[in-house]
Amino acid sequence: MSLKRSWVASANAADHPFPLNNLPYGVFSTGGGMPHCGVAIGDMILDVTTMEADGLLKLPQAPVFQAHSWNAFMALGPAAWADLRATLTGMLAEGSSTQQDIEPYLVAAADVQMHMPITVAEYTDFYAGRHHATNVGTMFRGAENALPPNWLHMPIGYNGRASSVVVSGTDIRRPWGQLKGPEDDKPRFAPSARFDIELEIGAIVGTPSAGPITVQEAFDNIFGYVLLNDWSARDIQAWEYQPLGPFQAKATATTISPWIVTAAALAPFRRDAPARDVALLDHLKDCGPMFYNITLDVRLTPQGEHPSTIASTNATELYYSAAQQLAHHTTAGGPMRVGDLLGSGTISGPEKHQRGSLLEMSWGGQEPITLTDGTTRSFIADGDTLALSGNADGDGFTVGFGPCVGTVLPALENPYTR
Amino acid sequence: MSLKRSWVASANAADHPFPLNNLPYGVFSTGGGMPHCGVAIGDMILDVTTMEADGLLKLPQAPVFQAHSWNAFMALGPAAWADLRATLTGMLAEGSSTQQDIEPYLVAAADVQMHMPITVAEYTDFYAGRHHATNVGTMFRGAENALPPNWLHMPIGYNGRASSVVVSGTDIRRPWGQLKGPEDDKPRFAPSARFDIELEIGAIVGTPSAGPITVQEAFDNIFGYVLLNDWSARDIQAWEYQPLGPFQAKATATTISPWIVTAAALAPFRRDAPARDVALLDHLKDCGPMFYNITLDVRLTPQGEHPSTIASTNATELYYSAAQQLAHHTTAGGPMRVGDLLGSGTISGPEKHQRGSLLEMSWGGQEPITLTDGTTRSFIADGDTLALSGNADGDGFTVGFGPCVGTVLPALENPYTR
Repeated sequence: MSLKRSWVASANAADHPFPLNNLPYGVFSTGGGMPHCGVAIGDMILDVTTMEADGLLKLPQAPVFQAHSWNAFMALGPAAWADLRATLTGMLAEGSSTQQDIEPYLVAAADVQMHMPITVAEYTDFYAGRHHATNVGTMFRGAENALPPNWLHMPIGYNGRASSVVVSGTDIRRPWGQLKGPEDDKPRFAPSARFDIELEIGAIVGTPSAGPITVQEAFDNIFGYVLLNDWSARDIQAWEYQPLGPFQAKATATTISPWIVTAAALAPFRRDAPARDVALLDHLKDCGPMFYNITLDVRLTPQGEHPSTIASTNATELYYSAAQQLAHHTTAGGPMRVGDLLGSGTISGPEKHQRGSLLEMSWGGQEPITLTDGTTRSFIADGDTLALSGNADGDGFTVGFGPCVGTVLPALENPYTR
Repeated sequence: MSLKRSWVASANAADHPFPLNNLPYGVFSTGGGMPHCGVAIGDMILDVTTMEADGLLKLPQAPVFQAHSWNAFMALGPAAWADLRATLTGMLAEGSSTQQDIEPYLVAAADVQMHMPITVAEYTDFYAGRHHATNVGTMFRGAENALPPNWLHMPIGYNGRASSVVVSGTDIRRPWGQLKGPEDDKPRFAPSARFDIELEIGAIVGTPSAGPITVQEAFDNIFGYVLLNDWSARDIQAWEYQPLGPFQAKATATTISPWIVTAAALAPFRRDAPARDVALLDHLKDCGPMFYNITLDVRLTPQGEHPSTIASTNATELYYSAAQQLAHHTTAGGPMRVGDLLGSGTISGPEKHQRGSLLEMSWGGQEPITLTDGTTRSFIADGDTLALSGNADGDGFTVGFGPCVGTVLPALENPYTR
């Protein structure tokens, strides 16, 4: 597939994340005004909230763009998703007869503030990166017992906290928590000293379900994808996670990129599943190319310094697709809703520079990484800005995710003295 | 404290769960109509949605009762909570001058259908029953390692699934799941054969918070309490829960009683914390009587048979209060919202007949219990109805929770053949 040319000239640059092939969906505001739904095209954003209000977009069960999220649109279902994408593609294509009608609805992306693109119904985080699970397992349980016995049979996951999901650009306050190191004789309450990132992709459920669904149905129910950084306090996690899993270690924040890259835009980049060591049970079996060829990078920028790229990997390193995770999520009969967010789990490749968390990069702090400014990191330092990026590269174009960024602020002096 | 008498005569019976001292809040409908907010008084329900519409109740930021939940009212905050309780108590008290105005708004409880009293924002389940944690730990890890090392230092919990919370009376479909017994060489996908209850109390957050809060603040933020049955598939749990905790084992359903018993109604039944084996860290320290003297029972009724009371215990058996759980929930900085639901964890007493789950009652299936019809149970059989009840007993009156009931239906023949 090659570049679709747009009359928005900036969208035609080979390395621009938002060509006509992409058309990601977000929520933006200008000058402190009310948030509107928008579609990114090159350096511009098409204000579909105002277009709908002015009668230039007709959607079933309108109005759908007058709330500050894409949830109402997602709830219209896959036929409406395809219709809008086709309509917008026609309107924005080079040679479109409607260019003059549409141009007034373009806003310069440089002038806007981005907001959460959806209201997150519930947030689930999985653990589907095999290299990540192997690395963490090796550190915690030794190489012999690295992968838990269930890991090759189903996508292990846990429920997270929707209230803690924030949009890219939100500052992240280093958390306090209960800590107890292996040498300590009792726990203490202190700021996390091992605060970390997790490089993930988030899948957004667009179609609800009321009982068990197949992998194919699950794939069709996913509206789109975002980059996702599941901030993790490793020292809180180590003390709390037995026997019921991570809780406050993951409660501080999860950052997502502001633009939903639709499943339709990513369709040309679908890839088959990795080889399976053991066959999956029937209800989880692969049934088509449901993984994505998306290159992923992590940059760390110390306060006032230049960025260092500290990891580069690819979403094809995942062992379970978002569709398999969503199907597994429904096996016990629980309902899934519009706006449910599923984190993929940390995506690491086999090499050291391909690891998606500092825990792995620094091997639990034993092998600190060196940045371009000469300083080293085992975990995040106060003032560090962490940025994820993701791109699916086509023939002369790229489908990009836009930024997934957060700066870590020092912990509060004492959260109980206010 | 003694009985407050009401002109609704049924409310004055010594064993009625809904005297004037209680005034629990729920959502009901009659004859298939729209759900309304209501307040239970004896055998009647006061329709506050219609009272508000007719101008008999004036609330700040009205209307608050025109949606089908108590969330908007909870969001008004503690002063409004106290005002409404005082207003309703005055209106319904024996000798009230407004009896004739109010009587038309009473609906017979026997004629209504109950609905979820709140929109659950997010659902968290804790593990704060010491006897339960000890029993389960002994079965899984041996008596030496029964309590996890962190258990006496903080309230261990995990995030559950708000979408799966249902109101009492909802049938529960036995789930399928991935199972692998210790003797099996590989997992299989099958209906759960070890489906269980968990006897709990749920706390409802009425005041939001944006960062760490103290135990006292947490106590004040809790609007009220419900009975809660966290249906649990023990065989799914055993295979999936390492290393990230329970997931599909808890995803089928969680049943709550339809009436929110307010913190105000339970105030006379507050009790001090149990003795602490080790001192809690400052931010979790006890700071007043925040436990409740509530007797709790579990009844099991096989299809077409009489009920057997299979467990009797008390909420004072909890080691951590809901306030301590909520405070711990905020330590890492994540926001809490109006409508968040916190399960206490299974409440078991020290004796065999005081155990709040079949897993414990039957000691993992090794010691089946015998019902009044002569049949035995290790776990739930299809057609069984499980009912929790709870009462705080005063001097000549009781503050009751009303029913928390569910009937278990057979598993679907095959959830993937539809």
